[in-house]
Amino acid sequence: LFAQFSQRYFAELDTTMRGVVDSLADAVPGLDVMVRYPMGWVDQDNLPYDKPTGKRIRPMLLLLCTEAAGGDWHTALPAAAAVELLHNFSLIHDDIQDSSPIRHGRPTVWKIWGFADAINAGDALFGLAYKALHGLADSGVEAGAVLKIWQIFNATVLDLTRGQFLDMSFEHRQQVTTDEYISMISGKSAALLAACTQIGAMIPTGDESLAGLYGDFGRNLGIAFQIRDDILGIWGDPNVTGKSAATDILSRKKTLPVLYALSHSTALADIYQREDFGEGDVSEAVAILDSLDTRSYAREQERYYYEQAVAAIEAAHPVEAVAQGLRLFLDKLFGRSY
Amino acid sequence: LFAQFSQRYFAELDTTMRGVVDSLADAVPGLDVMVRYPMGWVDQDNLPYDKPTGKRIRPMLLLLCTEAAGGDWHTALPAAAAVELLHNFSLIHDDIQDSSPIRHGRPTVWKIWGFADAINAGDALFGLAYKALHGLADSGVEAGAVLKIWQIFNATVLDLTRGQFLDMSFEHRQQVTTDEYISMISGKSAALLAACTQIGAMIPTGDESLAGLYGDFGRNLGIAFQIRDDILGIWGDPNVTGKSAATDILSRKKTLPVLYALSHSTALADIYQREDFGEGDVSEAVAILDSLDTRSYAREQERYYYEQAVAAIEAAHPVEAVAQGLRLFLDKLFGRSY
Repeated sequence: LFAQFSQRYFAELDTTMRGVVDSLADAVPGLDVMVRYPMGWVDQDNLPYDKPTGKRIRPMLLLLCTEAAGGDWHTALPAAAAVELLHNFSLIHDDIQDSSPIRHGRPTVWKIWGFADAINAGDALFGLAYKALHGLADSGVEAGAVLKIWQIFNATVLDLTRGQFLDMSFEHRQQVTTDEYISMISGKSAALLAACTQIGAMIPTGDESLAGLYGDFGRNLGIAFQIRDDILGIWGDPNVTGKSAATDILSRKKTLPVLYALSHSTALADIYQREDFGEGDVSEAVAILDSLDTRSYAREQERYYYEQAVAAIEAAHPVEAVAQGLRLFLDKLFGRSY
Repeated sequence: LFAQFSQRYFAELDTTMRGVVDSLADAVPGLDVMVRYPMGWVDQDNLPYDKPTGKRIRPMLLLLCTEAAGGDWHTALPAAAAVELLHNFSLIHDDIQDSSPIRHGRPTVWKIWGFADAINAGDALFGLAYKALHGLADSGVEAGAVLKIWQIFNATVLDLTRGQFLDMSFEHRQQVTTDEYISMISGKSAALLAACTQIGAMIPTGDESLAGLYGDFGRNLGIAFQIRDDILGIWGDPNVTGKSAATDILSRKKTLPVLYALSHSTALADIYQREDFGEGDVSEAVAILDSLDTRSYAREQERYYYEQAVAAIEAAHPVEAVAQGLRLFLDKLFGRSY
């Protein structure tokens, strides 16, 4: 159902993004393929690629919010392209920083072309995101509104780097509070979703206070979704998540349930500090998380942010015909709606 | 003399840049120091640092061009801050890509904090550059002109990534033509200087054709300056350059004189291919460059671009009182003026 709703956007979004990226193509074919590959348009030999890669959740949400705020989604295409290009910039740099070899079932950019070129490919997507956003000025959006949207985008970029810094620093720290964790995911996961919803509403209305409500919707949604992901990373069904069971425990990832457990008992820290920590210790660690009822804690937190998100979008009074699309979107992300 | 001219700008430029960077400081002190350090404001322990680091050539040139085009340089401070922040972003990522351990006599950002955090610190400066540029909207520049300047900045960012890609690709290639080399330095060295001069003139005038002349001035200046640097990297006096003699030969760097020699004789390639190539081979390599008269070739090229630059700025009819400042600027960069 959501697919039906969002399918309307897909072709034109793709055309807009390709148009922006094409501006790199003429002079420098080698850089071009390093940018098209992570977008899922070509394989590493620059041949057409048509398996699904990114789900384009962020630009879809942005376009939906433009409609929800009473606008024509076509006007918002440059901004939708911008958030997706920015998202892909951050994935390329993330994958280098984490040394992740695989993304969407394919080797990551650095894995194919090396760190140096991957940094540069990310930087190119960063620049292309801004170039895409600038397209709003030719899309019928008034200059003053474009400048405000650009400012939101700049703040989002800085939130992303703050979140990324915190995420990396947590790996080396013994103690991380759950508040610090929420602050980190507010930057790393939620800031870009907040930008989508806020900018989406700003485009047709230029109304900063209405766009603020939409921003709250996206931010809380992003936090709730990350917590949901944390829960699935421990208790998720491997058949549904596509990852092995309790994968986040094996990698000792500092997610919300884990941080809660670490701050309420030393038992988990004791297991995590074992020198030969491995698969054999996972079920013991999960048993501790269960005994501390961390799953309920995380579910309550998820519900709290989810309800904040719903309250914000209801206060924004979205156009009724589009509210249905937003409900389908939530249902797709969370398996439930408002 | 140029110092007298440019000293007027320095304090307010510094204040503007610090103001933009301060916006990162509140929430995340750890990221903050990684950004302030390369700007030369603090040492790696976040203690005040007052030895000279960057020369701020780019923002000075931008402010000079705003005055030359009849404007008040104060109006242009946000753009001047933006080009300097962008320049520092590119240095941080460059140093990672080249594995360079030292910059301005200090350890590079990645050398202190590692690759992952250095990539992120560069990304933060990238975002801060855009945030600085956005300040033009509050600086009395008309919204339409701000949007045009933003577009120039976006194109510059993409030129930088193109130039960087070419520069890195040349290292792995046997054959690079001198034309390809000029194309690379047009992106890597000249694009940002062109942005400074073009944006500088755009701010007071909003006149794209006049700003185009200023852009030509900066671009040609940047190319000439890079070629001059190439010449000094081989024949420069170590007492003046502060580097060891023929340093670019020892590192087999593909600069303009070298590419010219490689395309006119196999003698240099033969030496460069020696498995134990080292200091003992340098004088032999330089002798080949001398016998092919590559120094004269490079000097002619430098002169050609320098004269193009002078022709462009003369055609732009800069305000006479400021033209003197531009002459001092050229004299400082090239040891001669127009």
